[in-house]
Amino acid sequence: MKLLEERILRDGEFKGNDIVRVDSFLNCQMDINLISEIGKEFFRLFGDKEITKILTVEASGIGIACITATYFKVPVVFAKKTQSANISEEDGLLTAKVRSFTKKTENIIRVDRRYISPFDRVLLIDDFLATGEALLGMIEIVRQAGAEVAGAGICVEKAFQPGGDTVRKMGVDLHSLAIIDKDADGNMIFIEK
Amino acid sequence: MKLLEERILRDGEFKGNDIVRVDSFLNCQMDINLISEIGKEFFRLFGDKEITKILTVEASGIGIACITATYFKVPVVFAKKTQSANISEEDGLLTAKVRSFTKKTENIIRVDRRYISPFDRVLLIDDFLATGEALLGMIEIVRQAGAEVAGAGICVEKAFQPGGDTVRKMGVDLHSLAIIDKDADGNMIFIEK
Repeated sequence: MKLLEERILRDGEFKGNDIVRVDSFLNCQMDINLISEIGKEFFRLFGDKEITKILTVEASGIGIACITATYFKVPVVFAKKTQSANISEEDGLLTAKVRSFTKKTENIIRVDRRYISPFDRVLLIDDFLATGEALLGMIEIVRQAGAEVAGAGICVEKAFQPGGDTVRKMGVDLHSLAIIDKDADGNMIFIEK
Repeated sequence: MKLLEERILRDGEFKGNDIVRVDSFLNCQMDINLISEIGKEFFRLFGDKEITKILTVEASGIGIACITATYFKVPVVFAKKTQSANISEEDGLLTAKVRSFTKKTENIIRVDRRYISPFDRVLLIDDFLATGEALLGMIEIVRQAGAEVAGAGICVEKAFQPGGDTVRKMGVDLHSLAIIDKDADGNMIFIEK
């Protein structure tokens, strides 16, 4: 998606340790016009997939998921994060373990079982895809519910981390609107997958 | 707002300790049609206030703030929560202490100073108002930035807890779309303020 790539080039911050910060328009401060265009693009990509629900993980995916949902006219469910060990696998909860790459923590993400039914066709939405931990956690939750992963829409994927390829190999219909890689000199480039 | 009151009566869950759960339509699972109507109502209430930015706190306020922002066509900033003691007051951060009534924890909420300027007229948005801690934290952050609190829009206020009245006494233009109180027998009723 050209609009997002151009915005990343203009306003993204590139730090050491392969960190790309998009805080000023996608996370922390959200450019609502940009996110509306992102939502439209996800609808263009997945609008024919008979999506019944959108799933994301708190916190930064929620705004993108909600604006996307205004085009699909389906409910949004967001998985809540809890520090590991605080929660046991209770009846009525769908849970998965998720490690955070940037924060170096391990969380359990959880969704009330009532909010994803075996009849749901779920679109997964998130802002970033790097190691793939959050996305794999959401896939695990949808499968626990006996529902179907109808697709996954990501704003920014880092191609130099393994998450995207892992998820594609699982057969998930994954679309990332901007895929960042590094050329031989370590400069950031956008690629297609 | 009749639509929200009716929905709370139909799908809300009322637990002991004055807890009202709206997880199935406002929090965890979000009814996007309802939230679009909520966004429209906030625009009706605050549309003439020359709002330049919407501020909320992660996580459950983000979706409501983002959909509301599609009517105002302004950016959304969300304050991030960090467990106290993990963060010192750094240059470049606006911070405030916030205790959580339901989780019995104390957090620091923080916003990058670049995202609220002294010229901003800020609309505060959140799903719940009970003790008022989150809203008071947001007011503190806006004032640290030298900006103006142009109003506060809340979905569900609990009148039997002090937050709403505290914030009204400060002169903030606060609108809560559903205000829950208890009658002499402890039954839930909606009131106007």
